[in-house]
This record gives sequence, C-alpha cells and structure tokens, in this order.
Amino acid sequence: MPVITMEAAKLTKEQKRTLAKEFTETAARVTGLPEAGVYVFIKENELDNVGVGGQLISDRNKEV
Amino acid sequence: MPVITMEAAKLTKEQKRTLAKEFTETAARVTGLPEAGVYVFIKENELDNVGVGGQLISDRNKEV
Amino acid sequence: MPVITMEAAKLTKEQKRTLAKEFTETAARVTGLPEAGVYVFIKENELDNVGVGGQLISDRNKEV
Amino acid sequence: MPVITMEAAKLTKEQKRTLAKEFTETAARVTGLPEAGVYVFIKENELDNVGVGGQLISDRNKEV
Amino acid sequence: MPVITMEAAKLTKEQKRTLAKEFTETAARVTGLPEAGVYVFIKENELDNVGVGGQLISDRNKEV
Amino acid sequence: MPVITMEAAKLTKEQKRTLAKEFTETAARVTGLPEAGVYVFIKENELDNVGVGGQLISDRNKEV
Repeated sequence: MPVITMEAAKLTKEQKRTLAKEFTETAARVTGLPEAGVYVFIKENELDNVGVGGQLISDRNKEV
Repeated sequence: MPVITMEAAKLTKEQKRTLAKEFTETAARVTGLPEAGVYVFIKENELDNVGVGGQLISDRNKEV
Repeated sequence: MPVITMEAAKLTKEQKRTLAKEFTETAARVTGLPEAGVYVFIKENELDNVGVGGQLISDRNKEV
Repeated sequence: MPVITMEAAKLTKEQKRTLAKEFTETAARVTGLPEAGVYVFIKENELDNVGVGGQLISDRNKEV
Repeated sequence: MPVITMEAAKLTKEQKRTLAKEFTETAARVTGLPEAGVYVFIKENELDNVGVGGQLISDRNKEV
Repeated sequence: MPVITMEAAKLTKEQKRTLAKEFTETAARVTGLPEAGVYVFIKENELDNVGVGGQLISDRNKEV
C-alpha cells in the first residue's frame, strides 16, 4: 500500500513520469510508508469516453 | 462530485453520449448537485478481459 | 456486465433506490443487455475524504 | 503489481484471509510475478448500497 | 455480486482464462454465492502507465 | 477531469488535507488543467481488508 489511480486524458511519457514520481513522494511523505510500496496507475481515457456536465468532452471541445 | 464509472463492452459514440447524458441527469436530480460537477467515465472492455461465471465472455459467446 | 459505480457523499436509502433503478434502466436500454445482469455500486464518501480544487469538501463547506 | 480488488458484501476475517491468500497465489502463479508484490483490497458493501437488476439487494432480500 | 478487478500488465488469453476461472471459483466457494453472478474484469496496463516506487515500470525495466 | 483515488489505511484529517492539496497541485501543473476540476477520493481501508503478499496486513502486523 498505498495505491494511487489517476483518471486522465492522453498524456506524454514525460507527464506520466512526473505524475508517478510526485504522487509517490507525496504519498510516502504523508503516510510515512516506504516509496517502494507505492503503486501508481495512470488511466488514459479517450475524450469520447468521458462526460462532464452530461456532455462527452469530445463533443464539448468541438463547440469551443 | 459525483463521479460515475461504467464498465461495459465496446460501445458506439451515440451510446456513450446517451449514457453520459442520462447518468448525469439522474445523479444531479437525485443528489440535488449541479450537472456541471458530475463526471462520467465509460470503460470499454475487450470480451477477452471480462469473465462471467468463471468463463471469458469471448469464449462464452463462441458456444452460443 | 455492465457494472456501474457511483462515488458520492452520504445518501438516503430512497436516493440509493432511485439511482440503482434508473442507472440500471439506462444501461440496459442503451446496451440492449438484460437488467438482471446490471450491477450498481454506490460508494458513500465522508466529506473529509473528498477533495475538490485541492480542498477537502468538509473544509470548503465550513467557508460557505 | 498486480492489484486485485473484490467488491463484496460483509465478510468474516477468516473469509478475507482466504480470499487474500488464494487470489495472491493465483495471480503470482499465472503472471510469474512474486507474491510479495501482489496487493488485494476487499471492499465490503452494505446491501443498501448494491443494486442488482435495478433493485437494492437489501430490498430484494426482504422479498425472499 | 461479487465483482473482482485485477490491474496487471499485458497478459495472454490463456492467462486471462485461468485468472477468470480461478478467481471465480475462490470467490464463490468463500462467499457461498453462485459462480454465475461473479464478474471478473482484467485490466491490462501499459508499463508506461504504472509506477512502482516512484518510477515507471518501463523505465525501471530498462535499468535491469 | 482528472480524478485521483488513493487506497490507504486510516489517515488523520491533516494527512487527508495535505494529500488532496498536493495531488491536485501536481495533477493541475502536469496536465495544464485547472485545479478546480480535479477531484481526489481518499479510500481508508481497515487492515483486515488489505492483503500484501497473500497475508492480511492486520495479521502481518501482529508478527512484527
């Protein structure tokens, strides 16, 4: 433990590196648990698969 | 809040639109919270990746 | 399949009834799958356990 | 990795021991990864919080 | 119910068959619930999307 | 979006404040998305409900 999961859109490898590193540092520092036991899962979602305010983000972005 | 996640098989964009819209309406009406804050994540799973009754759905469908 | 999970705050039993019923109807109608196979999990979170905009909702509500 | 999560109703400690042990053995054997890295989360849900076929399990059980 | 989700790396179809079968058997035996109602979701993650100890597994594997 | 979920053991309110704040800052900075749209869910698990290496953490801690 702990396990951190982030639901997001498409990300670059560099962004994923930073997220894994910083989430792990924060979790280990706050809980006092070793970084080695912290797992981070980054879930990249297509914008067709995420709704905000009842609208798919892909549809919403077309209007902008 | 709230956040709604649906695990399903492959869906069309139109199906995902309807799910996002209707889940959001239901959640906002029932909780009294604004639609704008409701997130919906639709997770499309390959039938090789879902088991029902101990059998992969892809295997089960071959028998039908 | 499908499985629907909603992350929310505390809800009444009546609210949970309505959510389970309506989410199931929507999912079955949109996917064409039988209602009997639709599972709904309602996750009630303490407001100390949910952050929005970097702030716990319990702290945010105190300011309102 | 891997991480296994089971959504269930209330369970005894003995049931949870067995689930954690056997899920870990299966996951390690099948993936070839060490048991030490396998996490199992058992999520106990109130029957008011789970819907099957559009009905809360607590309501459904009253009819049986 | 119950619903079991496993977060893992890429797996073969045979591995997924075994996981679905054995997780279902264990869950049904321990809970006393019918196998037919047990759902298993296997989530295959890219090694760029999983962090252990603050490092992406894909980066970690390059060092080995 | 994004939504961050952390599975952990029991935490103090101060720990949860820090986690919500720092996870949100990291996610907003890395993705370029506004903090206001970042949700954080902190899931506190009983040590009877988490297995590591096939053993419940509550059992493992008794041996230490």
